[in-house]
Amino acid sequence: MFESFLENKNSWLNGKGPESNIIFSSRIRFARNLSNYHFPWKASIEEKEEILKEIFSFYKNIDLLKDAIFIDMKDLEDLDKQFLLERHIISQEFIGPSRGKGLILTLDEVISIMINEEDHLRMQIIKSGFDLKKAESLLNRIDDEFSKFFSFAFLSDLGYLTSCPTNVGTGLRVSCMLHLPALVLTRRINKVLDALSKISFTARGLFGEGTQNLGDFFQISNQNSLGLSEIEFIDNLSSVVKEIKEQELEARDLLLKKYRISLEDSVYRAYALLCNSRIMSSKEAFSHLSMLALGIDLNIIENIKRDVVNNLFIIIQPAHLQKLKKSILKEEERDYIRATILRERLTGFKRQ
Amino acid sequence: MFESFLENKNSWLNGKGPESNIIFSSRIRFARNLSNYHFPWKASIEEKEEILKEIFSFYKNIDLLKDAIFIDMKDLEDLDKQFLLERHIISQEFIGPSRGKGLILTLDEVISIMINEEDHLRMQIIKSGFDLKKAESLLNRIDDEFSKFFSFAFLSDLGYLTSCPTNVGTGLRVSCMLHLPALVLTRRINKVLDALSKISFTARGLFGEGTQNLGDFFQISNQNSLGLSEIEFIDNLSSVVKEIKEQELEARDLLLKKYRISLEDSVYRAYALLCNSRIMSSKEAFSHLSMLALGIDLNIIENIKRDVVNNLFIIIQPAHLQKLKKSILKEEERDYIRATILRERLTGFKRQ
Repeated sequence: MFESFLENKNSWLNGKGPESNIIFSSRIRFARNLSNYHFPWKASIEEKEEILKEIFSFYKNIDLLKDAIFIDMKDLEDLDKQFLLERHIISQEFIGPSRGKGLILTLDEVISIMINEEDHLRMQIIKSGFDLKKAESLLNRIDDEFSKFFSFAFLSDLGYLTSCPTNVGTGLRVSCMLHLPALVLTRRINKVLDALSKISFTARGLFGEGTQNLGDFFQISNQNSLGLSEIEFIDNLSSVVKEIKEQELEARDLLLKKYRISLEDSVYRAYALLCNSRIMSSKEAFSHLSMLALGIDLNIIENIKRDVVNNLFIIIQPAHLQKLKKSILKEEERDYIRATILRERLTGFKRQ
Repeated sequence: MFESFLENKNSWLNGKGPESNIIFSSRIRFARNLSNYHFPWKASIEEKEEILKEIFSFYKNIDLLKDAIFIDMKDLEDLDKQFLLERHIISQEFIGPSRGKGLILTLDEVISIMINEEDHLRMQIIKSGFDLKKAESLLNRIDDEFSKFFSFAFLSDLGYLTSCPTNVGTGLRVSCMLHLPALVLTRRINKVLDALSKISFTARGLFGEGTQNLGDFFQISNQNSLGLSEIEFIDNLSSVVKEIKEQELEARDLLLKKYRISLEDSVYRAYALLCNSRIMSSKEAFSHLSMLALGIDLNIIENIKRDVVNNLFIIIQPAHLQKLKKSILKEEERDYIRATILRERLTGFKRQ
């Protein structure tokens, strides 16, 4: 499944949105629960399957979703689930026992709705670049359509009810994925992250909660969902993201002006290893691609296009490699194929 | 001084001797003391200067030394001393206070005699490759000539007397510098070194006693000088060196047959970093040059000549870089220039 997604030119993952060099993507999601069913952590498999069926028979009525696909998660192989995770469409938690779980997904991968994850509905919009406003309006339109047909668990003094208290209220999580190589290189990143936590924002790794920081990507989001309106949450995150972007730009400037040679050294080393290694882990590849991306942004490397690198960030992930090669691969096989693909795509030169 | 040595085509350092891919060089030295003077550790500066003068006025009588130069060490700048050390002509110990110390050196750098190092005379022959027999006959000719004119400290039951008891007897130290990257890569090297020490041989780093193992070079030598004849010492070392060479060849074979991809990975990574870095320490350069040399020996890299690499091993050392640039350089300047020279010489491409 999903073969057509592999080189999906229309996907937000191509990173062509506004300001996408530093702000790779913008994401907003609502958590919603149907008032006439038990919450997922309490519902039986049968109850969840009923919810699935109900939503499945409804969603095509929503104009924005009329071309979307509906996936019953139990029909997916592990590799396909991993693939969706790597594309940021589903969560780590959504992998695992799959009965009663479903996914609605548009072909540009912008709109995705997980059914029976932690809540009955996890509706998410991901846009390339810095595009929270558009994401918000899109998400509200979908939420409105669902509200017309379903009754959501809601208390007037608390707002939307959710499985985890951090989501109670608006049920909103808003986040941006930032690429901050210069803040990492200049060792200013920890100061930035510390400051964030003091104002109730968190920075997570590439795949959300509890995941590693790979390739200098940081997902910045609000820590709770209560006490402010949706718009306020979004505006707050926007200002924080703009501020961090400024700091990243300052750090880039500093590198160029005061540490140009060591910057070039790091960039050329990364580029050289990407073009010449025969074995490479995804962790190492992420790290070198990050330096290469920075090198392109700063005009140190001129013969590689930024979107080639953006695409490589996605394609070198384990499930993507296996989809690409159409077979299940052991880790050492993946490391070999990853290095081969990096070499081929960055040098345009096919060897063996 | 020594500018002409920098790219000395006739030097043994060019590594064109027999079997020089693995056995980089062969070295034999005699320690001798004049019987009518105090040993250096006890002699006054004046006494040492008298010895210097005596040897200076004599050495041109020896046919093999008639074109050699005589250097009073106190006339040398620190950089020049370091330069001689990097070329394995003088010892670490010979650097430092210089009054009363002298050096006789032939222009091919094969014959060198340190005067008033630990002993009055430290006569050494270094030949490229595996050439102990020729080195020994050369050294004996010189020793014979000195013996005709000078009376050496000698006891019939002990042999030649020396400052350090490990040299008493023949006064001989015989060693070969081996390049053993495959034994290092396959982690067999420690077993080899352990076995060596059990049969009274030692392995030292690139610059002798107490120095680091750089670039997978190991200097194998006898541990003491007593109880065997010169020829026996040399024959013993020869067999040991041949045995280690066989083990290195076996390890190379194993890498090619069972670990070809990771071998290629290591070689291409090293080559890529040498050709692309902007800053490189000598330690790092040694390590990558070692892998590149292995890659050339095993026909993985075909467009670089082995003697270019041999020359780089020498030229990238700190004092060599400074002689090349004709100025005293700070460490960070050297690291930059080292990377530039490596890039230029390996890619044939001059940038900035």
